[in-house]
Amino acid sequence: MINIRTDLALEAKEMYAEEQNTSELPGVKVENKELDNCIVTKVEVMDEQGSMIMNKGIGTYITLESNLMKFDDDESREEMIKYLKDELVEVFGTDKTKKTLIIGLGNWNITSDALGPKSISKTLVTRHIFKNYNKDYDDDFTEVAALSPGVMGITGIETSETVKAIVDIIKPDRVVAIDALASRKMERVNATIQISTAGISPGGGVGNKRKALNKEYLGVDVIAIGVPTVVDAATLTSDVLDMAIDNLMSESKESETFYNMLKKLKEGEKYQLIKDSLDPYDKNLIVTPKDIDETIENLSIIISEGLNRALHPGRITK
Amino acid sequence: MINIRTDLALEAKEMYAEEQNTSELPGVKVENKELDNCIVTKVEVMDEQGSMIMNKGIGTYITLESNLMKFDDDESREEMIKYLKDELVEVFGTDKTKKTLIIGLGNWNITSDALGPKSISKTLVTRHIFKNYNKDYDDDFTEVAALSPGVMGITGIETSETVKAIVDIIKPDRVVAIDALASRKMERVNATIQISTAGISPGGGVGNKRKALNKEYLGVDVIAIGVPTVVDAATLTSDVLDMAIDNLMSESKESETFYNMLKKLKEGEKYQLIKDSLDPYDKNLIVTPKDIDETIENLSIIISEGLNRALHPGRITK
Amino acid sequence: MINIRTDLALEAKEMYAEEQNTSELPGVKVENKELDNCIVTKVEVMDEQGSMIMNKGIGTYITLESNLMKFDDDESREEMIKYLKDELVEVFGTDKTKKTLIIGLGNWNITSDALGPKSISKTLVTRHIFKNYNKDYDDDFTEVAALSPGVMGITGIETSETVKAIVDIIKPDRVVAIDALASRKMERVNATIQISTAGISPGGGVGNKRKALNKEYLGVDVIAIGVPTVVDAATLTSDVLDMAIDNLMSESKESETFYNMLKKLKEGEKYQLIKDSLDPYDKNLIVTPKDIDETIENLSIIISEGLNRALHPGRITK
Amino acid sequence: MINIRTDLALEAKEMYAEEQNTSELPGVKVENKELDNCIVTKVEVMDEQGSMIMNKGIGTYITLESNLMKFDDDESREEMIKYLKDELVEVFGTDKTKKTLIIGLGNWNITSDALGPKSISKTLVTRHIFKNYNKDYDDDFTEVAALSPGVMGITGIETSETVKAIVDIIKPDRVVAIDALASRKMERVNATIQISTAGISPGGGVGNKRKALNKEYLGVDVIAIGVPTVVDAATLTSDVLDMAIDNLMSESKESETFYNMLKKLKEGEKYQLIKDSLDPYDKNLIVTPKDIDETIENLSIIISEGLNRALHPGRITK
Repeated sequence: MINIRTDLALEAKEMYAEEQNTSELPGVKVENKELDNCIVTKVEVMDEQGSMIMNKGIGTYITLESNLMKFDDDESREEMIKYLKDELVEVFGTDKTKKTLIIGLGNWNITSDALGPKSISKTLVTRHIFKNYNKDYDDDFTEVAALSPGVMGITGIETSETVKAIVDIIKPDRVVAIDALASRKMERVNATIQISTAGISPGGGVGNKRKALNKEYLGVDVIAIGVPTVVDAATLTSDVLDMAIDNLMSESKESETFYNMLKKLKEGEKYQLIKDSLDPYDKNLIVTPKDIDETIENLSIIISEGLNRALHPGRITK
Repeated sequence: MINIRTDLALEAKEMYAEEQNTSELPGVKVENKELDNCIVTKVEVMDEQGSMIMNKGIGTYITLESNLMKFDDDESREEMIKYLKDELVEVFGTDKTKKTLIIGLGNWNITSDALGPKSISKTLVTRHIFKNYNKDYDDDFTEVAALSPGVMGITGIETSETVKAIVDIIKPDRVVAIDALASRKMERVNATIQISTAGISPGGGVGNKRKALNKEYLGVDVIAIGVPTVVDAATLTSDVLDMAIDNLMSESKESETFYNMLKKLKEGEKYQLIKDSLDPYDKNLIVTPKDIDETIENLSIIISEGLNRALHPGRITK
Repeated sequence: MINIRTDLALEAKEMYAEEQNTSELPGVKVENKELDNCIVTKVEVMDEQGSMIMNKGIGTYITLESNLMKFDDDESREEMIKYLKDELVEVFGTDKTKKTLIIGLGNWNITSDALGPKSISKTLVTRHIFKNYNKDYDDDFTEVAALSPGVMGITGIETSETVKAIVDIIKPDRVVAIDALASRKMERVNATIQISTAGISPGGGVGNKRKALNKEYLGVDVIAIGVPTVVDAATLTSDVLDMAIDNLMSESKESETFYNMLKKLKEGEKYQLIKDSLDPYDKNLIVTPKDIDETIENLSIIISEGLNRALHPGRITK
Repeated sequence: MINIRTDLALEAKEMYAEEQNTSELPGVKVENKELDNCIVTKVEVMDEQGSMIMNKGIGTYITLESNLMKFDDDESREEMIKYLKDELVEVFGTDKTKKTLIIGLGNWNITSDALGPKSISKTLVTRHIFKNYNKDYDDDFTEVAALSPGVMGITGIETSETVKAIVDIIKPDRVVAIDALASRKMERVNATIQISTAGISPGGGVGNKRKALNKEYLGVDVIAIGVPTVVDAATLTSDVLDMAIDNLMSESKESETFYNMLKKLKEGEKYQLIKDSLDPYDKNLIVTPKDIDETIENLSIIISEGLNRALHPGRITK
């Protein structure tokens, strides 16, 4: 089983495939479609075996990879919102009586972790209007509530406790949890959206110890929407080390011994070696693009608008 | 019964006294103390009669009035924090096993309404540490959790519902609710702190329709801490009108008829007249000092530090 | 000459007309056009006499009045941006070799005063690109630089000094100065844009003592773009007092003496009376809508986008 | 000459010493003092030869290294402010007639680059008061103006042009420029302050091409105050690669060839190799602690307060 930090099922699959030198994963089904400016990959973790191999809960993981997310113009944003909306509609279905609670995970004081709360602040909530008018159904809107529960260091309360308490009281049909993720590959940072029906499970890659936000604990469907916004420093170093060695090797033949030794190290071992070397440094190092502040703002628009359009089909937009 | 908008028991008392031309309020007890730079008034609403007269729930209302809150230097702030801490300690008592949940009411996106959330962001929470170390008691700290539940327009959830849900799960011994208030007098804005053991009750002056945050609903003691940060435009106009007429009258005698007519209007009627005249304008007009942004920041430091020192007696501070 | 605080030529004209009971202003020409959701008024102050009467510099003042500015949806915003762009294009002309320096006046720490700096932050600057490519002309873009000089209390430097220094070094063909204004009427707040070719002159209504930003001082054309974001408390009270008295009068006849006395007071005298009555209060009281934070954000998008489209005709937008 | 990106003279010296295996640097003098919780190193670049070796302008570079900067409590902050103030007083001298212009370099929209502007916002400016009272001297305060000129991408104007324009108009005796720096070592990030009398010179390590801010260009003394807030990803990888190889070597002897080859690579070559390997990634990768937002806020308090106390000796502080 792999220890490298990734929240993306797509990467977990890649890493297993690489390590085992196979494209066959027992208990896991993978499908691709290539849209104009976006690659959509659907990874289905079908059973316990698949779950063990992937270190991910049973469920569907849809990944949208697109450089559209890196551009700050209206046109790119609109196109990306459309792709996201289409996948969300497929996951949510068309039952307009379903009630949604959207949760923005993460710490609003830490830019790279603020994707959830920032998306929540742009989400169209309607629950109070449904309640005021004593309605259960509307042609154009569905019932949506939203909350950013904060993190333990800010509230003193386990995030999952807060969410559970709210779920028990407002009784939604599903929870949508928005979170910033960690990726293994710098190129996926801020260029990937993962939608997962498996919810968020402890030990599910992130490293932040928080209890589960999944159907088992909350009692309702949990759809997680995440974007990798950081790579941890050890991951980056490990990747770059590989590339540096390849570069060196192509120039010189004399060091094959060391090269081969490194190649023989399992991926997890190499990561651990790097991790140990980083130890004298602060443990909380992250690698981000310099313009992370603007990037998170842009991503939060894409996610909130994707949700708004998927959940409120009759809402007029440009 | 008075309709004019005030959240301060002190003002409710003043208005009744003015209207009835008496300083005796049945069911209400008032005490004063004058400290160096701060006047502390304790209004006790003792029974149903007092509650009706005051339009305030039964309980104690402590008001700190001080211009120290208007200065942005460390010294003034420290002195004010001390006054607040002393009153809070008296209200909280010294039992270190009591668990507190602090709630920051209001909308963090509206400066004049952001006092609660801003105070919460500076509050020292400890509940997660008590849980991690499986402790019930500490010499220096007490167990504190904190939450800014947002407002209905942002979350779609009634604030009181969110608070009730959290109270039911984390079972604190008391709730402290921080809120921005409305005052009747511009001179009290940003220069007054009210601490109340009556919690926050519907119709309790504010005009924002939200359900109660009080012992009856939550099942635990509720202490409300509030600072008036705005005066509504009708209130200001009404006050100024009075003063303008007095000014005019002192210069000229010929208009006694109109003057007397106005004087005969009950306070509430005059307010309604002004309110109606303001009707063509936006309903949401508020009157604030121009530097409201800095003011709210300063007030949030005073309140959070007052709470931190009252709840964590062993915490080292300068 | 009138003392009441207004930055809008439109209001100065109205006040003169009201006071003098005439619609003829010597030295002043007024034109109207009614567009779909926007009224455009062009006030031309043609000579010294007009300037004295209006308490405004010689030049053209175009006012766009529209409730579109109050709505936060893309459609309303787009329509308003179009109206603004059209007027700006008329003022700027079509010479693509003209260089523009855009100045965001005001204090970014005070929400109601932050319109200028917030607009600047969304303005598309191109001067550095023209310099890097050593260009003087482009089909799609014109040369634009932008600066928020701050206010004296933040920088210790007179705003006009900073602007003059930058103008002398980068030698633009025109300066565009964006500022928050004061209006006399609550209904115009956040619902009016004034474009003026007269620049900004000392004593030109605002009350903030800063030296002039006009052609005489800077040596280049100065176009001021402003939106009234506040009404001062005295103005509001004065207006409401009028309405309250009218309301009272319609109900009762007995107080004609006082009423007539008040009516006989010149507008400026009444304002002064109210101003004096407000004296015990903080001098810096302003009246704003409660949601001023969001409003300023929305207005800054309209202004910056209007400018971007007027100055960069080839820029692709939705 | 070394190409690795560092803004710290201390590190430039270390790197030369390491590479040349010597502690003697011609034209460079180094002194140390160890205070309670702070190490102060003074590097003097005395002549052209020293300047060439160090890739730094002639002048004095004082480095304060202290973990106090990493703690967010008042006590640590106060101690650090004291150390900084003491060094600044030594650099500034005691002439109270000297006028200072403080410049906050960097982009306020990018957290890791916002140290300058954030410090400026907390700086006590007095120039306008000296002007209003027509004073040249005060016992307690000196004349201070402050400006955050922004960056080229925001203003379209070269930062140095803006500063020069302001210097020419307000004629200060010295310019103090605050900037975020890049370090070679993660452990120095947010734990080091460099004060330099050499100003900021083009090619002086940072990589951001901007013209000089030094005495030659501005005509007055320029004191630069900087804190390294990021390490670039290539630097980190390079460092970690070294450590990883050392770790590996201590376990296994078989790869000495490769190891030795790597060791033989000059530092600059290795950095280039890594840099090339990082090429497929975004060029703007930075490595920061996760809590960079809070860190920059804390650092800006230390720097602004250090300056306030050094420049206004009579100001009362706690």
